[in-house]
Amino acid sequence: MNRLVIIGSVALDDIDGPAGRRESILGGSATYACYAASFFARPELVACIGKDFPAKARKVLEERPIDLAGLATLDGPTFRWSGRYAPAFASRETLALDLGVFGGFRPSLGKPLPPGSILFLGNIDPDLQLAVLDQAGPDAYVAADTIDHWIRGKRDALVEGLKRTHLIFLNDEEARLLTGEDNLIKAGAALRAMGPREAVIKKGEHGALLFTSAGLAAIPALPLESVNDPTGAGDSFAGAMLGFLAASPDRDDATLRAALARATVIASFTVADFGVQRLRKLKEEEIEERLAHLRGLVRF
Amino acid sequence: MNRLVIIGSVALDDIDGPAGRRESILGGSATYACYAASFFARPELVACIGKDFPAKARKVLEERPIDLAGLATLDGPTFRWSGRYAPAFASRETLALDLGVFGGFRPSLGKPLPPGSILFLGNIDPDLQLAVLDQAGPDAYVAADTIDHWIRGKRDALVEGLKRTHLIFLNDEEARLLTGEDNLIKAGAALRAMGPREAVIKKGEHGALLFTSAGLAAIPALPLESVNDPTGAGDSFAGAMLGFLAASPDRDDATLRAALARATVIASFTVADFGVQRLRKLKEEEIEERLAHLRGLVRF
Repeated sequence: MNRLVIIGSVALDDIDGPAGRRESILGGSATYACYAASFFARPELVACIGKDFPAKARKVLEERPIDLAGLATLDGPTFRWSGRYAPAFASRETLALDLGVFGGFRPSLGKPLPPGSILFLGNIDPDLQLAVLDQAGPDAYVAADTIDHWIRGKRDALVEGLKRTHLIFLNDEEARLLTGEDNLIKAGAALRAMGPREAVIKKGEHGALLFTSAGLAAIPALPLESVNDPTGAGDSFAGAMLGFLAASPDRDDATLRAALARATVIASFTVADFGVQRLRKLKEEEIEERLAHLRGLVRF
Repeated sequence: MNRLVIIGSVALDDIDGPAGRRESILGGSATYACYAASFFARPELVACIGKDFPAKARKVLEERPIDLAGLATLDGPTFRWSGRYAPAFASRETLALDLGVFGGFRPSLGKPLPPGSILFLGNIDPDLQLAVLDQAGPDAYVAADTIDHWIRGKRDALVEGLKRTHLIFLNDEEARLLTGEDNLIKAGAALRAMGPREAVIKKGEHGALLFTSAGLAAIPALPLESVNDPTGAGDSFAGAMLGFLAASPDRDDATLRAALARATVIASFTVADFGVQRLRKLKEEEIEERLAHLRGLVRF
């Protein structure tokens, strides 16, 4: 088992959408990524919360094999996000955003990561990602996620970070925006030309593409008749993929594909309930069942 | 080998788009479907052309094992369609449409089709599809295609025809429009509830979904770095699927999945050049190669 260090946000979310409304539920990119990774590995969470962080929310984090030593409690309020989904989850609107202590977050790794380690740079300011890369040293396998906000606003830092990234996660629109390529196959190649040895382009209900030195993998999404909260789908996708990789001796094409399938499966559970509610109840055998289902989908 | 009867249009197309312009090239839904089917079976074309139909275009039809006995030459001009594709083939605009002899087309099957036969009702007026169904008798396996124009304008006849259809082909937007379901998994179930035992929902670059009594198959599209003319992609998809089915002793889930893979492969060749140009040059071993590629895409 290799080390897996996950950097990102731990937040309290208000979520409103077709399936109802929830207030102050545990969220944040690092929360979802750690929760998802914990089904395969023991991720180390590097994030910060405020003194107002509810004991109940912390207990939810403690339920899983997640190393919380890097979760700093700082003076000030916890990161809060409030969002609303349109009917049929067609779009998402941010109603309010209060960075709280996350606004001054300066992640610290302590010391460089040993060979074999995986570092996940969740969706944070690309300048912060660069600062973490400097701390991580040259031996870690670096995975990163970002959003359109940073692609538009901090492109240079992002591009600099990509040169030191091994695996980049983007959704289709982000990949098009970053590369200028409309065709996703060309976008995948362009991403790899920017540095990452591997690129994942997530297409929501249409599945995901994985670009490696060995070629292309295309895995469909699992059919979901009932989505209740898509928040964190991408973060848990990345977390599950990296958790599986951390637990694997190899990072070759076959292992990356196997990890992609686990990512697809875990994300399909995430969206079934608000926050990490579904993942809290998730059993090993349910993961295996859904993997078998995924295999059945693409059999011909 | 079972009989495969394909009903639709044979046309002369003017096509303008990112890859250039071609005038008066052989097109039409039945042309594409027959060409694609001919790699697996010997389809019988039931369509009409005008006296102006160029000998050169007829020779292109004669190149493949297609039974042209049902291709009627009528007094008047051949169906002509003129269309333009937007940059990156993002959308298509019809510039001119002259039905010509196709406006008075009353397809005739001669006599009912024997058990095991497959009848493909290409995209024509649903009332005409019903008239053909009456001629076909109760023993044929009926596949049908349609477009948004008929879903909006002749919904009742379409729904009536569906009750007598075994396999329906629609793209994602058409499936949503016909069923009122935004979620494609629900749309697939709704389509099957309307009559067809099997439904295929085509998602373009995102592949296709197949709904059967045994469950769901999701096959990705082949990655296409170079598309030159998407005209006829859907028709050749359907033609290839039905050609493979006509050549198969079974129509069970495994056979339908195998047929879906062939459909994906043939359509990927169709769009590589204008009209049926790429299919004219297509070799057996290229089909096998691309099938292997498709298998590689979904391996995990």
